[in-house]
Amino acid sequence: MNFNTNFNDIENNYLFAEVALRVKAYSEKNPDKKVLKLGIGDVTLPLVPAVIDALHKAVDEMSKQESFKGYGPYEGYDFLRTEILNYYNNFGVKLDLDEIFVSDGAKSDLGNILDIFSKDNVVLVPDPVYPVYVDTNLMAGRKIIYANATSDNGFLPMPDYSVNADIIYICSPNNPTGASYTKVQLKQWVDYANAKNAIILYDAAYECFIEDSNLARSVFEIKGAETCAIEFCSLSKIAGFTGTRCGYTVIPHALERDNLNANKTWLRRQSTKFNGVPYIVQKGAAAVFSKQGMQQIKQNLAYYKHNAKIISDCLDDCGVWYTGGKNSPYVWFKCPDGMSSWQFFDYLLENCQVVGTPGSGFGKNGEGFFRLTAFGSEEVTKEAATRLKKLLKR
Amino acid sequence: MNFNTNFNDIENNYLFAEVALRVKAYSEKNPDKKVLKLGIGDVTLPLVPAVIDALHKAVDEMSKQESFKGYGPYEGYDFLRTEILNYYNNFGVKLDLDEIFVSDGAKSDLGNILDIFSKDNVVLVPDPVYPVYVDTNLMAGRKIIYANATSDNGFLPMPDYSVNADIIYICSPNNPTGASYTKVQLKQWVDYANAKNAIILYDAAYECFIEDSNLARSVFEIKGAETCAIEFCSLSKIAGFTGTRCGYTVIPHALERDNLNANKTWLRRQSTKFNGVPYIVQKGAAAVFSKQGMQQIKQNLAYYKHNAKIISDCLDDCGVWYTGGKNSPYVWFKCPDGMSSWQFFDYLLENCQVVGTPGSGFGKNGEGFFRLTAFGSEEVTKEAATRLKKLLKR
Repeated sequence: MNFNTNFNDIENNYLFAEVALRVKAYSEKNPDKKVLKLGIGDVTLPLVPAVIDALHKAVDEMSKQESFKGYGPYEGYDFLRTEILNYYNNFGVKLDLDEIFVSDGAKSDLGNILDIFSKDNVVLVPDPVYPVYVDTNLMAGRKIIYANATSDNGFLPMPDYSVNADIIYICSPNNPTGASYTKVQLKQWVDYANAKNAIILYDAAYECFIEDSNLARSVFEIKGAETCAIEFCSLSKIAGFTGTRCGYTVIPHALERDNLNANKTWLRRQSTKFNGVPYIVQKGAAAVFSKQGMQQIKQNLAYYKHNAKIISDCLDDCGVWYTGGKNSPYVWFKCPDGMSSWQFFDYLLENCQVVGTPGSGFGKNGEGFFRLTAFGSEEVTKEAATRLKKLLKR
Repeated sequence: MNFNTNFNDIENNYLFAEVALRVKAYSEKNPDKKVLKLGIGDVTLPLVPAVIDALHKAVDEMSKQESFKGYGPYEGYDFLRTEILNYYNNFGVKLDLDEIFVSDGAKSDLGNILDIFSKDNVVLVPDPVYPVYVDTNLMAGRKIIYANATSDNGFLPMPDYSVNADIIYICSPNNPTGASYTKVQLKQWVDYANAKNAIILYDAAYECFIEDSNLARSVFEIKGAETCAIEFCSLSKIAGFTGTRCGYTVIPHALERDNLNANKTWLRRQSTKFNGVPYIVQKGAAAVFSKQGMQQIKQNLAYYKHNAKIISDCLDDCGVWYTGGKNSPYVWFKCPDGMSSWQFFDYLLENCQVVGTPGSGFGKNGEGFFRLTAFGSEEVTKEAATRLKKLLKR
């Protein structure tokens, strides 16, 4: 027996471990200083009452023989898929119910979807990037090429027809940069993918932060996407499901190549390697999309969006270049005075006890940049912005 | 872009669809006849009160900021892993906490574990077999060879040293045959695997049905298994979690080859492609292992075991050869009068309206055999046994 030696090619990403280590060392030396953490990508507000109520009801159903649920459909219950279908209708995207697959989160499906593709495909990922896109393909031994995301293109690289890619990752609003493609820009990617016979794996995990109408909530708002794109979305950020685990993947019927149909192939993969999302969780997820649920969720989103505004207002005030902050929970900014990402991390920690994430941890083009997130409490975010302003204006 | 054309090699398994079709056609022609279904592998008893209570409490925790849980550990919460560790202690297996990975079910991990192995490995599966073992390897393009399970070996094939296998699937108590390896027999498989540098993927999903002390609850009761085996288990059958989704995978630290460590490689895989099992579900799962939970679970298991006894007593009475029935929820028996599996299916449906699963659906050696399960209600099981006895003794 041999292991898959591709695992040897995956670098261990010590980014968050190193952040934790430096914060710990600082706090031990300076026990009197209050450290403010704005580095995390995890939500902090609890589940909303409509979801809690639905979860309790579903638990009660599981306690009685007549309403108990055993194995569910691999692709998710129709009661939830119908809610997701209606959600897409809200921004003008028409789907069939069986184009929607309920998942235990975008991360699982973004990794597992690779099962349906040939190992010979060339993968195009932006740099900087969510490390999962790279590592999942390294495991499979695929060739990876990079599209440079820099301050010159606003961290939104556009297609280059001299590059031949088979699988293209797009995350918009982007993690880690918070930058979002306009519909006009996305149309160029869709046209490129169709021209190159390529496929776009579209990570829409942060779509709920979009407010500007020129930005796309879904890649399927773009004409032609149905023949070249798969979309991954999650309830983690819209409804605080990071620990409750539910998302969905949209695969259009029209997505076909070489007599294989992506939708049917994925269903085959899921029915063989997955047994669906817990009934209880799917009931909670459906409540997110109810009228009451959406009202409650919007309050939470408004809270995080306000935090993002506090941070971006601060940077505007200081004249610092950044992406995100609007239409995104992430604010990605240029480190002042030509500092490297880690130099600035230490500078920030030492001088105002604010913790963020060094951009270099997301790829070479992240060097010299820094990420703050809107998922903390308003109180901490305000205090961090005040300290940051004082430091940057010094 | 090219799809993974290995998917073309996977046959569509129409077994349960065909069963449903024939039952539907019969019921439409004979609306007055009561059809008794003993074909399902799904549980029917609701979750026990201790689990329901824990689920409610966990939902309440998710409703408050101070107890809300976001992203959890990829490998599961220690509160659950500790319970699983203690459970293994009960049958004399000592584990480290980080040898236990909490999963969303044995099926997911049995499929996903293949990510850590080379594509060049030769896979040995018994025939008949749970179709997932075959299909997951076909997807990856691995060569599959078969070990014949027949009535001659009691559907428990033993190792053949002239065969070179890299990955060996063992399911004991077996799905679909209900046959269980003794510890003495398992030791032969462990010795074979260690001699051949092979790995055993041990599916212990039905271990909770084992009562005889000469049978193993875990492959790790066998000396030497820690250098050649990975064990997959599930709460689906022990606690009715088929729709609640929780299981666990045990990978010993000692399982190493070519400088790669299986435990560390799997953690790398999971941290990249998985974000853990819902907190709420893990809390419910931990309650299964509580004193109160175990008492309640045992009542449910006794109920199913009694159903299995009703079926096997009936077959004993009729002088029919079978495996399982004891130490297993499945009863696998020889179709009378040389009938094929599907002939007997139709004969049973026509003459006594009992529905089971044709053995031929699980592989060529299943031809001429038939599976009934103990997961129905006692009432239905009793009535089915009465009808079966009347027919077989005719």
